[in-house]
Parts: sequence; structure tokens; C-alpha cells
Amino acid sequence: MSDWQQVSYAVDGGVATLTLDRPERRNAYTTVMARELAEVAAVADADDAVRVLVVTGAGKDFCVGADLAGAGTFDRSAQAADAGTIDGVARDWGAIGALPFAALRKPVIAAIRGAAVGIGATMTLPMDIRIASDTARFGFVFTRRGIVPEAASSWFLPRVVGISQAMEWVATGRVFGAEEALRGRLVSRVVPDDELLGTAYGIAHEIADHTSGVSVATSRQLLWSMLSAPSPWDAHRAESRALVELGSGPDAAEGVASFLEKRPADFRAPLDGVGLGWPAPPEDLA
Amino acid sequence: MSDWQQVSYAVDGGVATLTLDRPERRNAYTTVMARELAEVAAVADADDAVRVLVVTGAGKDFCVGADLAGAGTFDRSAQAADAGTIDGVARDWGAIGALPFAALRKPVIAAIRGAAVGIGATMTLPMDIRIASDTARFGFVFTRRGIVPEAASSWFLPRVVGISQAMEWVATGRVFGAEEALRGRLVSRVVPDDELLGTAYGIAHEIADHTSGVSVATSRQLLWSMLSAPSPWDAHRAESRALVELGSGPDAAEGVASFLEKRPADFRAPLDGVGLGWPAPPEDLA
Amino acid sequence: MSDWQQVSYAVDGGVATLTLDRPERRNAYTTVMARELAEVAAVADADDAVRVLVVTGAGKDFCVGADLAGAGTFDRSAQAADAGTIDGVARDWGAIGALPFAALRKPVIAAIRGAAVGIGATMTLPMDIRIASDTARFGFVFTRRGIVPEAASSWFLPRVVGISQAMEWVATGRVFGAEEALRGRLVSRVVPDDELLGTAYGIAHEIADHTSGVSVATSRQLLWSMLSAPSPWDAHRAESRALVELGSGPDAAEGVASFLEKRPADFRAPLDGVGLGWPAPPEDLA
Repeated sequence: MSDWQQVSYAVDGGVATLTLDRPERRNAYTTVMARELAEVAAVADADDAVRVLVVTGAGKDFCVGADLAGAGTFDRSAQAADAGTIDGVARDWGAIGALPFAALRKPVIAAIRGAAVGIGATMTLPMDIRIASDTARFGFVFTRRGIVPEAASSWFLPRVVGISQAMEWVATGRVFGAEEALRGRLVSRVVPDDELLGTAYGIAHEIADHTSGVSVATSRQLLWSMLSAPSPWDAHRAESRALVELGSGPDAAEGVASFLEKRPADFRAPLDGVGLGWPAPPEDLA
Repeated sequence: MSDWQQVSYAVDGGVATLTLDRPERRNAYTTVMARELAEVAAVADADDAVRVLVVTGAGKDFCVGADLAGAGTFDRSAQAADAGTIDGVARDWGAIGALPFAALRKPVIAAIRGAAVGIGATMTLPMDIRIASDTARFGFVFTRRGIVPEAASSWFLPRVVGISQAMEWVATGRVFGAEEALRGRLVSRVVPDDELLGTAYGIAHEIADHTSGVSVATSRQLLWSMLSAPSPWDAHRAESRALVELGSGPDAAEGVASFLEKRPADFRAPLDGVGLGWPAPPEDLA
Repeated sequence: MSDWQQVSYAVDGGVATLTLDRPERRNAYTTVMARELAEVAAVADADDAVRVLVVTGAGKDFCVGADLAGAGTFDRSAQAADAGTIDGVARDWGAIGALPFAALRKPVIAAIRGAAVGIGATMTLPMDIRIASDTARFGFVFTRRGIVPEAASSWFLPRVVGISQAMEWVATGRVFGAEEALRGRLVSRVVPDDELLGTAYGIAHEIADHTSGVSVATSRQLLWSMLSAPSPWDAHRAESRALVELGSGPDAAEGVASFLEKRPADFRAPLDGVGLGWPAPPEDLA
């Protein structure tokens, strides 16, 4: 499992940890890292032993953004063929590393310390939960670099923090601290730096130790996909179908039995039946 | 008006109160309750004397969730034929009791004390305003039972509290208190338990005593339905039409006259012209 | 630039100020003001010297709402022909003054003191950032006048503050203060009255002095337009295209160079290539 150059990955007790692992470059994002993020997402998704994924950075930072210099130079023209194209133009490398987390069947918790700037901020938006160390600082700095937000963040950011907060951060491009991120609902908690990973693993184990994997996978897809649905009747259709499928399965029986018997549940249903439903890639990329 | 077994209903001074009324079972949800909720919603909608609906629970709880044992057993297979089907599968009973509140032409205020868990939490999401007693505790516990959220809550919850907060509550399935619900914007106020109903009725009378029923009904449908509309131009169309219709009506004349004369308005326009427009049920259920 | 009767307009150092300028009528909204707002929005959009627009009111108020009496009477029947029609009915004048700000290629900051009521509140919703003086009070008072919200606010308000907060303010029609507006996320800051404009200009210069105009314009359209898009893949398409276009432009080169050289950036790319893309007016109005 150590086949990666710029990330590391480990699984323990149902919780996987994906670490952006270029501390000597403050975990700056490269095309290599983008590919490795997508690969690790696929590995974590396929492994039934993984219930939750925690994403963090090695060293003092989460990710300072795209590597603008040195060996990992983020040069669009050179990489176009490599990334593939969409609508005839080079695909954004940010989305190649970040969008796989949107499709995951496991919840993803970002544990952020130090700099989370540019793609270091936007890559966390398809993740479910973001918590910050009090050392964290964020920046949607694209307008200060002459470009625009990437990693599909123009879709995610207004849904996570609201359009007004999103516009203020994107239009100013300013770097801001953990408390402003909390007030603006970009992160749900701010904790002392030495409690960051402990807090993340605490939430991860709330999920891994007490819930059904097939329930969490199906619920995650329901909630995210319904952001795209015009009507609550769409949810009624999808939920009715899921309730019939899961309701006749072993985890629902165990869920009711353990509740009535006032004992911990022992959920074991596999994820085989739960598709990577959302967001479905467009036909030209599928 | 007392034809119901598991709910009670009363109207006073323009404000109706719907009470989940199985305190001996902590107001656990059954198929009987689902049907009765839909019936009461229809009664409240049709009665011009009702301007606002307050929903609360008898005893110390709002609703502990689906009745998993005893006389009210929530057994999907036995009830499928009764609930009807959608896309060839049994319809979720949660939505049968909850979705009628989305379509209501009157605002709905949930006054929540004690447990509001499972369907006891999700049924409140199509309501407009939620206030909590400091005794309230909430739980989207579906992933701890081996199933998924119902009552179209995969559509409503991310729109009410944001996708990140929704995912944290659904993925962990944990039970949380009134203060966390307030911080997460699931409820707009937390008050001492003995002030709960007084606060709910205070808001209800702000509406019932000072506003036009036809204005509130039309506005409610505009706001909720525009969650489904892609463009603000859709709102411009719908609002222009509504302003022409209501602007030539008696309540608009009274609204301007009372404002200029600095006296309370006496609104009387009936709701006859305001359809149950949103969310329109799909053709196979209409 | 002083051709307007009910607004005034000035540009200084990249920041334009649009002032609702009928202090003797507390800046009450009229059809004249609606037209002038649309004209000023077009002027500000076309002027490359303008990077950010600050909108405020002359005197002690932002705008008390539609002028219900006197020379500026807001009489729908008389003005129908003048406003044009949509779907065969008179267009809402509120949207005529407010929707042009949604389409702007420059960020808009509303600096609000005193009354912002009715159209005085709704006209600010397509703007990006709202800050309030501690004297500010807001009201979505339509249901107390026998009409409904306008200016496409049934689309904007739930997206800015969430559906539950939107419904509470619209259903009650009550007037509320700056602190409630802050808690409800209608405004992002509340400051002492004498610091209102200073704070607004501070944010405006964060943008004007440090960011690329073409980046901000494109980002603004991306974020707002993606509210209308069903899938993050739509964002991936649009962002990939924008990154290729801007990435080969002079501001991206300057952005990277200035960053690596640790000096202020000197962005100069014109907005010529950035269309007024969103929200596209319907065919019958285009």
C-alpha cells in the first residue's frame, strides 16, 4: 500500500488515513498528487474494511496550493494531454484529484492544520466534514493569481457556506484564519492543534463503530445527489426504493434487534449493492 | 374534530394546534399516525379560520421515532399495499405523514421538547420554523438502524442545515441536544421548557394577527417552489403574475390603506385562488 | 455622470459608489429609481476603471421600500406598459431595478444603515456582500401589505439565508434589527454607524487593489451560475474552459510571477472577453 510518491495511506480499525505527504514542499499539489488522490480514493472505496476516510497533511500544513515552482511545476500546457480533455479543452487537474471524493461510498473527514490554500482549500469541499486546528488558515486565492476557482468548487462552495460568504472569500482572495472559517461554516469545529487528529478519529469512530456501512453509503449518496434534484418527490422515490432494499437486508434486522435488546449493533452487510451513483460523470468522460 | 386516534387537533384565534398524542408510547410514529397527519394537514389547509399551524407532542417528547414494537409495529411488508407504491415499490410511510406539510398553504411551526428522533426529526423538515425546548434532543439515527433517512429528508435536510452539517448528523447517527441543533441551524430558538408553547404561539400570532392569509399562502409557495427553479427569472415570472393578481385584490388595497392611515390592517381575502402548487406530486401519485 | 434624478454615482480609485439619493423621501423606491438603477449598473459594468460597486443610501436610511404616496407613487396599473410584460402580465418593477446587479461582472457591496424594508431589503439580495450599521433594520413586509416578495427575492432569499429563516421573516413580515440580520446571515458584519462606509470601502479595496478583474468577473459568474447547475460536473466543464482561457492570459502570468517574486501584482487584463452570462434573460425579454 506504499506505492505512492506524494501521499501515504494506512488503515486501522475501520478508519483509513490519507496523508498529503510532501512536507518539504508544504504538501503542494502536483499532477502526480492528483492522480494518487484519485487512486487512493478508489482503493478506500473498494476496501470493505474501510468505513471512514480521514484526510490530513504531513507536517505543519494541509496543502499550500498548486506547486508553482520546482520539480512538481503545475504547468497546464505540458499536462493537457495527460489530464485528458472535456469539451475540447484540457481538464482541470484540481477536479481530477478532488471529484473522486464526491463519489465515495464512505464519509470523508478533512483534518486541517496550517495552510489550506487554493486547491488545498477547494479539494476539501466534496468531503463531508471539515475540522480545523487553531493553526489553520484558508484562502480561495485564485483571483489574486489571475485565474478562477477549480476542483468544481464553484459548485460546491456556495452549497457548503452559502453564496454570500463564498463570494466574499473568492472576490477578495484573502487568507483567513480558523475562527473566520468556523463563523462562515467552512469548518464545523476548531480545536487546539494537538487535538486535531484525535477529534477527527473521534468522529470517524462514532461512524465506524456504531453505524451500518451500507446505510452510510446509501445515505451519503442520497443526500449529495438530492442537491441536484428539483423536487422532494425525487427523494421520496429514491428513499422508498432504498428503504425496501435495505429494509429487507441483514443490517436493518440487526439494527432493530440490537435497539430492542439494548445492545451494540453488529453490522456486516457488504457494500456490493451500492453503486457509485453520484455525481455521474458526463458521457464524454465515463 | 376529534375523530383521530393518535393525534389531536384544536383551533383557537386563527392558530391551529396539531398534537402527536400517544404519550404512553412517547408519540411513536405508526401508519395510523401517518394517515392522521395527512388528514389533519388537509383539514387545516381547507379551513379559512386557520392561519398558522403549530405542531407539538403530548407529554415530555415530540416523537421518539417509528414504533418498533407493540400494537403500532412499523412493519413495511405488511403495510405495503396500504401505503401504495411508487416505481413499483412500497412508498415510505414517513413521507406520507410528512410531505403534506410541504404543500400546505399555511405556515407550520414545530414546537419540540424531549425526543425528536428518526421520523420525529425528519417530519419537521418540511415545516417552516422549528423551535426547541432546552429538553429537546434530536437524532437522524437511521444509519444506526441499518436503514436510510426517510420522509424526503435527503432533499430537505441539506437545504435546511447545509450539506456538511446534514452529512455529519446522518453519518454518525448520533443523538444531540438543543444547543447543537441551534448552532447547526436545525432550530431557530431554544427556550426554557415552560416557555416553549408560549414562544410558538407568539410567532404564530405575529403571523395570524398582522398578515394577509392570501399573501402568506402565495409567498410560502413562491419561496419553497423556487428552491426547485434554476433561475431567478423563474421567480420574476411567478412574482410578476402574483403581484398582478394580489395587487388588484382587496388585501393589497387594505395593506396600503392601513399603512398610510397608520392603523392595524383588517385582511379578509379568501384562499380560494391559491392552489396547492408545490411540490406537485408525480403523475403516478396524483 | 450626474444625469440621474434619484440616484447619484461616483468613481474613485477603482471603486464606484451608487447612492440611492432621495433622502427627503427616505430613498423610497419609484419606477424612476428602478430605471436609474438599471442604467447605473450598466454604466458600472462597462467601465473598466470600476472594479467594485458599493451601494448605499443618502441620509439616515438605505431605502424604506416602494413609494406608496406622493410624486413617486408606485401604481402598477399606470406603469404596466412602461415596464413591459412577461407572460402577458406587467413585469414587477422591483426586479427591473434589482436583477441587473445579479448579472454584473463586478462584485457589489451593500452598505446598509437605517431602514431597508420591502424592496429596500430585497434589492440587496442579488448583491454579493451586505454589511450593516448598528442602526439598520430590515423587513420583508410584503405579507403585511397584502402582496408577495418581489425582485426575484423568492429565489434569492432562501439561497442567501436558508429556507427556514427566509420563511420566518416573510411569513411574519416583521421588522428586525441588525443583530438578528447578522445571526440569520442576511448581513456578514454589523459595525458602528460611523464605520459603515469605511468598512465597505475596506472590503472593496481588498478586491480592487489585490485581484485580477477578469478573474473576479469570471469567478462571480461561475459561482452564481452554478447555483443553477445540477451537477459538479457542470462546474468542471465551465472551470476547465475558464482555466484554459485565463491561464494563457496576461493576468495569470502576472499572478504567478508576482507571487514567486513576492511583490504586489499589477493586473491589467480587460473584461472584453467576459460575457454577461448569468442569469440569461428569457427569450421573451432578451
